[in-house]
Amino acid sequence: MKLVVAIVQDYDANQLLDAITRAGFRATRIGSTGGFLRVGNTTLLIGVEDYQVGRVLRLIEANCRERTEVVQPEIIGDIHEWYPPELVEVTVGGATVFVLDVERFERL
Amino acid sequence: MKLVVAIVQDYDANQLLDAITRAGFRATRIGSTGGFLRVGNTTLLIGVEDYQVGRVLRLIEANCRERTEVVQPEIIGDIHEWYPPELVEVTVGGATVFVLDVERFERL
Amino acid sequence: MKLVVAIVQDYDANQLLDAITRAGFRATRIGSTGGFLRVGNTTLLIGVEDYQVGRVLRLIEANCRERTEVVQPEIIGDIHEWYPPELVEVTVGGATVFVLDVERFERL
Ligand code: NI
Ligand code: NI
Ligand code: NI
Repeated sequence: MKLVVAIVQDYDANQLLDAITRAGFRATRIGSTGGFLRVGNTTLLIGVEDYQVGRVLRLIEANCRERTEVVQPEIIGDIHEWYPPELVEVTVGGATVFVLDVERFERL
Repeated sequence: MKLVVAIVQDYDANQLLDAITRAGFRATRIGSTGGFLRVGNTTLLIGVEDYQVGRVLRLIEANCRERTEVVQPEIIGDIHEWYPPELVEVTVGGATVFVLDVERFERL
Repeated sequence: MKLVVAIVQDYDANQLLDAITRAGFRATRIGSTGGFLRVGNTTLLIGVEDYQVGRVLRLIEANCRERTEVVQPEIIGDIHEWYPPELVEVTVGGATVFVLDVERFERL
């Protein structure tokens, strides 16, 4: 048994939790903050059998890896001043994952 | 030294913490959510000597194990319509426990 | 790789996080409660290389160890009744630290 401790962005947390649940795993979600600017993030605890660690890591990577997204900023101000907004590239996501060995596991 | 990570229902957390404290252990309590419906639960971190793991697990089992309780629903509505309410069985409790080995422990 | 789980007083958390960040480490901060009176404290997760554990422990000790501080209570009441307030000694700080081995570490 392993305990996967994954620190992910709030932005990605719901989608990852859906994927983890659909794959039959259980996760405990803890609100946390981190990084230089101390923005909110999410710490997940996921208990898995040893042979499932790779699968969980792939789910985290698929849903949370650091990536660039092209977003269209919201229109701000008077509609009369409207012009097509520039698309903006933002970096989102990223995950830090620690895999710990579990000496004993009990479901009571 | 072991670190016991116990995820218990909020419903059971106070009673378990009282029992743990009375037994001379110290616990750190973290608010969390879990499960399919993402209901609130409580994650406890309890540092114990190796020989005390069994005792802590028994305390968790005594206070948190999944069980059926018979509850009398609150009377709702006009007292003139009162009739003896049916007793209802509900499933409460349940705990998930990970025991991790601690390489080094310091109290500063 | 090690995961340092440090439970510190809220009173010390910001100063410790500044020191940890300046030293080039990353920490995840989780709000928690602990102890007999269940006062708020802070649980930090800090992933470090094995050779850096001592350095992180020294940073925690420097910023969080239990100590006595002499404080001057705030002046309360009418300024006409003012007299030099007695200095008061209070115990602050204290940290509980668990160092766990990390089997696998991924930054995605
Ligand atoms: Ni195992
Ligand atoms: Ni040990
Ligand atoms: Ni290592």
